[in-house]
Amino acid sequence: MDKDILLRLLQSVAVGDTPAVDAARQLRHLPFEDLGFAHIDHHRSLRKGFPEVIFGEGKTADQIIGIMERMRAQEHVILATRIEPEKAQTVLARIPQARYDPAARMIVWEITPPTIQGRGTILILSAGTSDIPVAMEASLTAQAMGNRVETVFDVGVAGIHRLLQHRERIESATVLIVVAGMEGALPSVVAGMVSRPVIAVPTSVGYGVSLGGLTALFAMLNSCSSNVAVVNIDNGFGAGYMAAMINRN
Amino acid sequence: MDKDILLRLLQSVAVGDTPAVDAARQLRHLPFEDLGFAHIDHHRSLRKGFPEVIFGEGKTADQIIGIMERMRAQEHVILATRIEPEKAQTVLARIPQARYDPAARMIVWEITPPTIQGRGTILILSAGTSDIPVAMEASLTAQAMGNRVETVFDVGVAGIHRLLQHRERIESATVLIVVAGMEGALPSVVAGMVSRPVIAVPTSVGYGVSLGGLTALFAMLNSCSSNVAVVNIDNGFGAGYMAAMINRN
Amino acid sequence: MDKDILLRLLQSVAVGDTPAVDAARQLRHLPFEDLGFAHIDHHRSLRKGFPEVIFGEGKTADQIIGIMERMRAQEHVILATRIEPEKAQTVLARIPQARYDPAARMIVWEITPPTIQGRGTILILSAGTSDIPVAMEASLTAQAMGNRVETVFDVGVAGIHRLLQHRERIESATVLIVVAGMEGALPSVVAGMVSRPVIAVPTSVGYGVSLGGLTALFAMLNSCSSNVAVVNIDNGFGAGYMAAMINRN
Amino acid sequence: MDKDILLRLLQSVAVGDTPAVDAARQLRHLPFEDLGFAHIDHHRSLRKGFPEVIFGEGKTADQIIGIMERMRAQEHVILATRIEPEKAQTVLARIPQARYDPAARMIVWEITPPTIQGRGTILILSAGTSDIPVAMEASLTAQAMGNRVETVFDVGVAGIHRLLQHRERIESATVLIVVAGMEGALPSVVAGMVSRPVIAVPTSVGYGVSLGGLTALFAMLNSCSSNVAVVNIDNGFGAGYMAAMINRN
Amino acid sequence: MDKDILLRLLQSVAVGDTPAVDAARQLRHLPFEDLGFAHIDHHRSLRKGFPEVIFGEGKTADQIIGIMERMRAQEHVILATRIEPEKAQTVLARIPQARYDPAARMIVWEITPPTIQGRGTILILSAGTSDIPVAMEASLTAQAMGNRVETVFDVGVAGIHRLLQHRERIESATVLIVVAGMEGALPSVVAGMVSRPVIAVPTSVGYGVSLGGLTALFAMLNSCSSNVAVVNIDNGFGAGYMAAMINRN
Amino acid sequence: MDKDILLRLLQSVAVGDTPAVDAARQLRHLPFEDLGFAHIDHHRSLRKGFPEVIFGEGKTADQIIGIMERMRAQEHVILATRIEPEKAQTVLARIPQARYDPAARMIVWEITPPTIQGRGTILILSAGTSDIPVAMEASLTAQAMGNRVETVFDVGVAGIHRLLQHRERIESATVLIVVAGMEGALPSVVAGMVSRPVIAVPTSVGYGVSLGGLTALFAMLNSCSSNVAVVNIDNGFGAGYMAAMINRN
Amino acid sequence: MDKDILLRLLQSVAVGDTPAVDAARQLRHLPFEDLGFAHIDHHRSLRKGFPEVIFGEGKTADQIIGIMERMRAQEHVILATRIEPEKAQTVLARIPQARYDPAARMIVWEITPPTIQGRGTILILSAGTSDIPVAMEASLTAQAMGNRVETVFDVGVAGIHRLLQHRERIESATVLIVVAGMEGALPSVVAGMVSRPVIAVPTSVGYGVSLGGLTALFAMLNSCSSNVAVVNIDNGFGAGYMAAMINRN
Amino acid sequence: MDKDILLRLLQSVAVGDTPAVDAARQLRHLPFEDLGFAHIDHHRSLRKGFPEVIFGEGKTADQIIGIMERMRAQEHVILATRIEPEKAQTVLARIPQARYDPAARMIVWEITPPTIQGRGTILILSAGTSDIPVAMEASLTAQAMGNRVETVFDVGVAGIHRLLQHRERIESATVLIVVAGMEGALPSVVAGMVSRPVIAVPTSVGYGVSLGGLTALFAMLNSCSSNVAVVNIDNGFGAGYMAAMINRN
Repeated sequence: MDKDILLRLLQSVAVGDTPAVDAARQLRHLPFEDLGFAHIDHHRSLRKGFPEVIFGEGKTADQIIGIMERMRAQEHVILATRIEPEKAQTVLARIPQARYDPAARMIVWEITPPTIQGRGTILILSAGTSDIPVAMEASLTAQAMGNRVETVFDVGVAGIHRLLQHRERIESATVLIVVAGMEGALPSVVAGMVSRPVIAVPTSVGYGVSLGGLTALFAMLNSCSSNVAVVNIDNGFGAGYMAAMINRN
Repeated sequence: MDKDILLRLLQSVAVGDTPAVDAARQLRHLPFEDLGFAHIDHHRSLRKGFPEVIFGEGKTADQIIGIMERMRAQEHVILATRIEPEKAQTVLARIPQARYDPAARMIVWEITPPTIQGRGTILILSAGTSDIPVAMEASLTAQAMGNRVETVFDVGVAGIHRLLQHRERIESATVLIVVAGMEGALPSVVAGMVSRPVIAVPTSVGYGVSLGGLTALFAMLNSCSSNVAVVNIDNGFGAGYMAAMINRN
Repeated sequence: MDKDILLRLLQSVAVGDTPAVDAARQLRHLPFEDLGFAHIDHHRSLRKGFPEVIFGEGKTADQIIGIMERMRAQEHVILATRIEPEKAQTVLARIPQARYDPAARMIVWEITPPTIQGRGTILILSAGTSDIPVAMEASLTAQAMGNRVETVFDVGVAGIHRLLQHRERIESATVLIVVAGMEGALPSVVAGMVSRPVIAVPTSVGYGVSLGGLTALFAMLNSCSSNVAVVNIDNGFGAGYMAAMINRN
Repeated sequence: MDKDILLRLLQSVAVGDTPAVDAARQLRHLPFEDLGFAHIDHHRSLRKGFPEVIFGEGKTADQIIGIMERMRAQEHVILATRIEPEKAQTVLARIPQARYDPAARMIVWEITPPTIQGRGTILILSAGTSDIPVAMEASLTAQAMGNRVETVFDVGVAGIHRLLQHRERIESATVLIVVAGMEGALPSVVAGMVSRPVIAVPTSVGYGVSLGGLTALFAMLNSCSSNVAVVNIDNGFGAGYMAAMINRN
Repeated sequence: MDKDILLRLLQSVAVGDTPAVDAARQLRHLPFEDLGFAHIDHHRSLRKGFPEVIFGEGKTADQIIGIMERMRAQEHVILATRIEPEKAQTVLARIPQARYDPAARMIVWEITPPTIQGRGTILILSAGTSDIPVAMEASLTAQAMGNRVETVFDVGVAGIHRLLQHRERIESATVLIVVAGMEGALPSVVAGMVSRPVIAVPTSVGYGVSLGGLTALFAMLNSCSSNVAVVNIDNGFGAGYMAAMINRN
Repeated sequence: MDKDILLRLLQSVAVGDTPAVDAARQLRHLPFEDLGFAHIDHHRSLRKGFPEVIFGEGKTADQIIGIMERMRAQEHVILATRIEPEKAQTVLARIPQARYDPAARMIVWEITPPTIQGRGTILILSAGTSDIPVAMEASLTAQAMGNRVETVFDVGVAGIHRLLQHRERIESATVLIVVAGMEGALPSVVAGMVSRPVIAVPTSVGYGVSLGGLTALFAMLNSCSSNVAVVNIDNGFGAGYMAAMINRN
Repeated sequence: MDKDILLRLLQSVAVGDTPAVDAARQLRHLPFEDLGFAHIDHHRSLRKGFPEVIFGEGKTADQIIGIMERMRAQEHVILATRIEPEKAQTVLARIPQARYDPAARMIVWEITPPTIQGRGTILILSAGTSDIPVAMEASLTAQAMGNRVETVFDVGVAGIHRLLQHRERIESATVLIVVAGMEGALPSVVAGMVSRPVIAVPTSVGYGVSLGGLTALFAMLNSCSSNVAVVNIDNGFGAGYMAAMINRN
Repeated sequence: MDKDILLRLLQSVAVGDTPAVDAARQLRHLPFEDLGFAHIDHHRSLRKGFPEVIFGEGKTADQIIGIMERMRAQEHVILATRIEPEKAQTVLARIPQARYDPAARMIVWEITPPTIQGRGTILILSAGTSDIPVAMEASLTAQAMGNRVETVFDVGVAGIHRLLQHRERIESATVLIVVAGMEGALPSVVAGMVSRPVIAVPTSVGYGVSLGGLTALFAMLNSCSSNVAVVNIDNGFGAGYMAAMINRN
């Protein structure tokens, strides 16, 4: 039931077509969310540049195409994550307006190009070259949500001078996303350099007691810097989404 | 806003005192739960013999007394679990109508004595003598909720003949609660003997790789019998509550 | 040794053909289960609509066919779970009376169609679309055991209004099965809405610290609602079986 | 070496008192951080209302007093977390300007009262009454850092209507902190209601497979809502600090 | 029902006092274990030197005394494990015939002194001095069960020559118990020196990643020697019992 | 250096050809194991029917053939475990005297047929049909080592009467091997029925919280029966080897 | 900015071409690492025989070739680890000066042959034949870094005499690397024989509770010998690198 | 049997008092370690400044005094670790020559003062103030073993500039010990700055997912720097001992 339907019911009560008792009974059983005024607004605000995402792992190209086509009517931007190159080719053959980023393994379909609306710049740093896919997933997500994004890759803590060379960029970002596998130490170091929120993303990069990313995750949650919060292992999308939320006006 | 208030608003629309548009605005901001009709029923059904419980661990006697006194107006039965003897003494000094069961470490305050209303008998079995407190917590909970409860203790699988001697009782129960620590094998054996639902309760009894009850828990979740569902370690209250739900007419 | 054989032995003692001492010796070595009276009844009750199940993972189509054909004589319904489509095709080519449900990945062979005999309706809810196979396994199992089953899919807690729209169905069910992966929060929310037993089924849906379903499992065991019991990860069959046990008259 | 010292050295080169080669040698060995211009700024910004914190666990009252007195010269606000009541009494006897919050188990010493400077309101929700200490730690931290903070306690998901009653406050917050133990489901539900960043704080509240808070932590990291990032178990301070960073202009 | 009662029933049938049909009915409901012939033998064999054990942890001195006095009628040897010195004093004040071994923290009450009846010698080796209590528990248990027991302590693998000095004793034992904490390496080395069964007992001795004995346990289960089987952490009693079983004629 | 060489050195000292001081120097540097008298005996005893085993997983057919041919000179029986059918075919094409058991996935090459020499019978029980490969590996190993072996499969605890029907065989065995996956409850039940050593073998059969066999392993280590010792997950060979050691005269 | 550039700036100040204030501003923004004098030395020392390594897992042959060719200008030795044979063939077809070691699964490209410069000999021991690849990775790494390396394989603790035969070599090494899977006991035994640093390398060799090498790792960290430090599971490269660092003059 | 005894035996053979055959028999049974020549050397080398250590946790003051007095004859330095202040007082009352370091919680008894004999300086860095006890344990151990030791405390990675200020000391050390709890990131950063071996010591400092030091341990084992090896959690003694071994000439 939307606003109009509610108004019509009340007008029917006003003109005597529907007795007050009957209207009360109808409203009593009215599922709350069908009122949903806030939700309509909420949904609208979502459509203002906040994309919907398709988790591509375990879905066929056909399923992905199907979902994308169903979503196109109501979304401005559609993202599909964890898409292997061959699958991407099939999808793009059918939806040529979309584009594929092989580093991020993401498909981005900007039905309406996003306009930059964030407060400042989101800076994404990653520790090793193997962490780049996760960092790129975060980057494309934040961009699709209308943010200025910069990236600095391969600045792991084993060569701290490489990181320090980017001090100015680090200090001028509004939100930082720091992606690292193995010992997951980079977010602590970066967060210690700024007074801005840092979203830490552990990756499953490593072997042995990297435990598929658990070690990096736990290290990040134990950060001796206080301005760090963490998302799930390899969750570049979530980090990009969270950073965009923080960077909202 | 309850039913009457809603009706009054609608009547005000009907007689023209409140324009439909204004009523729509009021209703739009109406917190859902203030309608709460179903909830009033729901709460009523809860009061029909289903007790409220106070988790006593980490609460002082004074805090427990305070909560019990606040609850007395709206509850028929009040349970307090995990109460050490000294704490119980202090509570009973103030609320002498309540009683304390040292085996279950529970205080039961039956403001209105429960009447038996379950479909059949709830049978509670436990593997070792150290599992008895958890079994008794389940027993008192189910009784307070208006169920016939029988108990058979110390029938662990290392002496399977002890268990088999109770075959008839086991077969005639409507719901069974099986409490075991260490290797947690008893629920599988019991469930294999009946076509009734079995609630398995792992206990923290054991040492070394009993892992504080995790081993018993995992064993029960892996039961080769299909009529077994499991609650948290040492959660006698939950098992009794769940069994009472199942035994409801 | 069945009832007749025992009677014959005792009659032989009565007429003096077998001395009491010899009969005592024979009885002494009598294997308990050969008496097995209760068990004959027990088996009979099992045959009254409670299906036998074949765990299909790691079995060849030929093995599954072999087991199904051996079981057909004594069972009314035969279920085979976790069957991939190709394997199902091979099985159905040989047993065309059976049917395959691709969503549940189950083969159901109703030798005698089940008659509805449960007390009420079993409602199955699932959080995400990836949880549907497990939910469907529960659904087909409960149906094959003679229960009215309803399903509500894709009502995860991230959009709580979707769940609330089904409030009436939720409140009118006799038993509820709630299937969820990732953070496993749905059973707590649903159980808080009803005074009926809820069987929670964690699924292995998720990545990173979903830990193959362990996180959802542990979350469900820690539910702040008391009317929840849990089965093993992805164990839709067990949940359906347990719900049918609870729904029995 | 600060800016003035550097300038003096260079002027000395300019007037010929120090040969260029000698100045080069001095600068070469110059510890980087002694230049520290950015750091001076950084420190200054830190002093603008961002408090320093003392982790009180395992420290004596005397040690805490000592650290607080040493810090008073350079900080505007000093926080000490995890302080038991008796220890607090000893500290306040010596530093009567500080105050102790027994719910949060924190000492707050506002040398200069913080002025509200955040963009909006930080809303802190907690699931159970046992989670309140962690929630209060977050609250006092964010307040000390110059933020408007509101709190809503005891809105766990087992009674979802309690949460929904606070929908408007939830929707109007700029940043949300959600504190929960046991199954850790609350952040997912709350995050699904808003388009704002949610900081989730798992607590060690629970028993059995709550695993000291690990279950709540993992559940939160697996949230099906994307606008959630997580801090360490019981880390109310970190959540408050992070929320303040996000709420900065 | 024992042998005599059964015989009497059958004789009553033989003389016509009890009709065969009635006797059949009686026997049908006869609880299996009441026949119990094998079990009487079994129990008798148990009494031939195989002790009953009381797990003392968490029991009061009074409870232990009570159990011991109840058991004295039917047992030849009674063991109580994990008894702290003060508790032992209280017990021995009441049962002066028993004796206490402070190293093993065990009370042994030999009502009838055991006679040596094992096939050979049980040799117990331990790695460190902290492992001695567990080793002594194994030793006293095996002795109470009628075995020749020898012990060699403090022969950890970090000084392999200490172990090699005992090569002859090691090679002449019939069964070996090897007790070790920390890295749990000793059983592998010892088992490699003999063609006899080795019972490995991990202890909780160690810190950090000894994980309360889990590391030693897992190491022992992974032994590159094939003649090793393992019992629970700190389970000296179980190892002594198992070794006695193996050493039986 | 063997016995003869040592004797020759000493004789050379006796006749004055080698000064005592020189002989001392030679002996000082003498590697201990070159003396190796005991070891020669030890090796001889090993050759008396105790087979050598090749762990086949991850080895090519050619590697296995190579090792088998190298070993044939000094061994009476050669076992190769975990051999897939195709690999076995290749091996048997080259070594036709060997035989392959597809259930156990083992190759057995009896160069000299073993003669029965154990004290009694080794009984192997397994819980489910999926546990048979591990049980068969134990069986073939014990047989190859000269033992009478009997097997009873598919007697899981969910149908305890199936197990009880084998009571006599169980009671007459000298050593028992009990193989079970999932909840791993069978060893406790069997061990409670006998006064003989039970070797428990957990298997990786199961899913979800069977944790690849860890749950069964931990359950077995926590057995409430004392005559149980445990080997590694799926280690049928080790169980058979250990049982043969125990059954030795 | 290198030394010359700094000097030139200071000379420009000295002669009045650059005002002191301007020079101060330039130096203030000077990235620390551009001064980097020590780092130039540091890099130079790295080039003196310490190889760079490419982790080959998950990289294509083309990627590896690309990296190797880019590195050739500045490195004396290039190592690529975890290279499967086919991938190696492709790489060597393009870079025929490199060589491939199939046991270590490593490619070594010595642009300038290393000269022996370590203090003594690095001895590498391994427990089982399956541990050889990891041991060989350590060996080639240490050799490429200019060390004398000796190896002793297959001296697991189950046959301690095999190890003792190598006592002299063991005692004469300067640094020892000990590689072992399963129970990981070898480092403790070896370290107990020497007063030299031992680098322990756990391998993922084993099954069941070897837990992919975690058990060996934890055992090594719990070594009862004090002269042991440990690297990650299967990290032969790291062990060889660390040993080379220790063996440096 | 020592060297003299062996010589006497051989002389007895030389003069004909002992026949060669008898001598051979005696030598054959000679326990290897009684020859122990190498071991005498080995022991001697140990006594040259390498201390023996007493693990004080769980030992009474009397036990510690007893062990110290027994050891004084053969050791130059005796260390006792993990000694609480009161216990230390009792020990020092009896052995006033020893001294107690409250920060390291160690007793050091230098019977002969150690002389500096290491190759260079051992530098010990620690991340937080709570890590100092472990760092001091390492320091006192290395000093007692005759090494020059320097320490730099409180240089955690959250303030990387604090660490960089000590660059010269870091670069001039021969061996480095890096102590850190929480996220354990410091060893990676330090190791990236040097070409020297780094011994990383995880501490149990932290809460929540620091998991008692496991997170720091795993992070260190996953270090992206290759010149890092790790010891057990809180094992300052082991780190100091290992560093001394590395620093030996």
